[in-house]
Amino acid sequence: MPSKSPVIVDLKFIPREVEDGLKGAFTGREVFNLADPAHKGRDLSGIDYAVVWKSDPDLFSRAPDLKVVFSGGAGVDHVLTLPGLPDVPLVRFVDRSLTTRMSEWVMMNCLLHLRQHSAYETRARAHVWEDLSQPEAADITVGVMGLGVLGLDAIRKLGVMGFKTIGWSRSKKAIDGVETFAGEELDAFLARTDFLVGLLPLTAETKAMFNSALFSKLSRNGPFGAPVFINGGRGGSQVGADIVTALESGTLGGASLDVFEQEPLAKDSPFWDMENVYITPHVAASSDVKALFVHVEQQMARFESGLPLEYLVDRKAGY
Amino acid sequence: MPSKSPVIVDLKFIPREVEDGLKGAFTGREVFNLADPAHKGRDLSGIDYAVVWKSDPDLFSRAPDLKVVFSGGAGVDHVLTLPGLPDVPLVRFVDRSLTTRMSEWVMMNCLLHLRQHSAYETRARAHVWEDLSQPEAADITVGVMGLGVLGLDAIRKLGVMGFKTIGWSRSKKAIDGVETFAGEELDAFLARTDFLVGLLPLTAETKAMFNSALFSKLSRNGPFGAPVFINGGRGGSQVGADIVTALESGTLGGASLDVFEQEPLAKDSPFWDMENVYITPHVAASSDVKALFVHVEQQMARFESGLPLEYLVDRKAGY
Repeated sequence: MPSKSPVIVDLKFIPREVEDGLKGAFTGREVFNLADPAHKGRDLSGIDYAVVWKSDPDLFSRAPDLKVVFSGGAGVDHVLTLPGLPDVPLVRFVDRSLTTRMSEWVMMNCLLHLRQHSAYETRARAHVWEDLSQPEAADITVGVMGLGVLGLDAIRKLGVMGFKTIGWSRSKKAIDGVETFAGEELDAFLARTDFLVGLLPLTAETKAMFNSALFSKLSRNGPFGAPVFINGGRGGSQVGADIVTALESGTLGGASLDVFEQEPLAKDSPFWDMENVYITPHVAASSDVKALFVHVEQQMARFESGLPLEYLVDRKAGY
Repeated sequence: MPSKSPVIVDLKFIPREVEDGLKGAFTGREVFNLADPAHKGRDLSGIDYAVVWKSDPDLFSRAPDLKVVFSGGAGVDHVLTLPGLPDVPLVRFVDRSLTTRMSEWVMMNCLLHLRQHSAYETRARAHVWEDLSQPEAADITVGVMGLGVLGLDAIRKLGVMGFKTIGWSRSKKAIDGVETFAGEELDAFLARTDFLVGLLPLTAETKAMFNSALFSKLSRNGPFGAPVFINGGRGGSQVGADIVTALESGTLGGASLDVFEQEPLAKDSPFWDMENVYITPHVAASSDVKALFVHVEQQMARFESGLPLEYLVDRKAGY
């Protein structure tokens, strides 16, 4: 029996978490964790697999024999834009944990805006006890853009919490009890949306989609007057300067942003200090590293026993 | 047909919301809204009904002929302690809106602590982009004390979001898929609880129940090491000074408090400025005034047609 191919790990996560995750993972295989300086510049030819998140740009020239590439996250735009990506199967990370973590972030941010958290924090800092007129979840329509695994889970849970929910996706999706819109029905969807949740993949079509023109089409009939933008998808789908303008002009009443066109967010970005804006450093659905490696091992086992790989990326669609 | 009895309204809510709620409410009855200075000192004898929340202490001496008293909220301790409360049926406010609002508040606060919101806000204020090691909801056991209408709704929704949930109540309650504890099983319940959610009524038994001794029995095995206390119930159930001490010593790692022994919270209370402590001014489940008046009208109609009143308070139990 031939020995199993080694696996390259190139994940720009918290380094200690990757090391911890590797303990007990990939039994029977050699692991090249590129975070280890010992592997700097090393020849990686002859290796079948790589698990990557924001890899070094020379990865594919150093590892010319890859048979499968695994993305360390649900998104794959960071892989598709790498120079020299070989024409081999590309597998996304789909995992219960990743999905529920994104829904945690979406739910928390919808509730922060609903419950006027920022206004209460301002009062707490001034030691002021004052109640505000408080709508309930059922008074708010949350519109979710992107109805993949993440969008579907978020929309279901938002419904359980009492929010009204609607959804939009490129191609029509049917969801029990939820009104959905597709493609060119976007304007009708936006006109109904009080809180807009972005969970879109980054593709040629979604690039810069969240811009001034789109924000101006959102509902202003909700209890807070101005709509809220919550992006847990990809920074490239939004135009940061337009979000700033929309917040300053009142076109948007608030925002929650986990992703940005440039990451890390610049020290002098206006977002850090804006009122009613919640900033997180691309952690909405950080991959659970142990779960990622279990998923990769399962797919490698399928591949080596001749079964088809799951969660394959459609490169033409871009996700 | 005799004309219907007037109704006294004495609700220390936001005055404008009470006025708005009264528009179109109580058709065919005279309404004495005691917030209106015109009713100051007025004789209220001969009136059958009062809807009250933190009434003036002279209410019952001015209105000696009440046949039913309606609480403006789910809790009734504020009524039970009023001087001269007549021995007539006391009806609590139970409403879908009130229940879902409390669950919004509980869920938001569990997520704020889970997702290390305070730590990320501190970094945002310093313009620092840094990700933290992030447990998921399934890594946290939320223990809910009080399994009435509010506790049951919260526990169900926390489960949907992925939290592990357990419950404690004075007398044993069975909840599908949730381990429950009763009475003297409290220590076993606390030893399992990472986030403690208080939704207890204020009674002789629950007074000062959330104290140093109780906090010291909470689990320290959760991913954050120290437990979190979240109280949406009644301020009288907690010992504020013990919460401060527990936070300072690390016995508690964080808290969310909507209620306090003295409300409004004093300007010089240490709670306002404590790290990882979220303060709201008793607004977790503000009554929807329109829904309250619909509920009161329904119960008055039952009473006047000889049907039994619903949601009656057991004065001996205190809730």
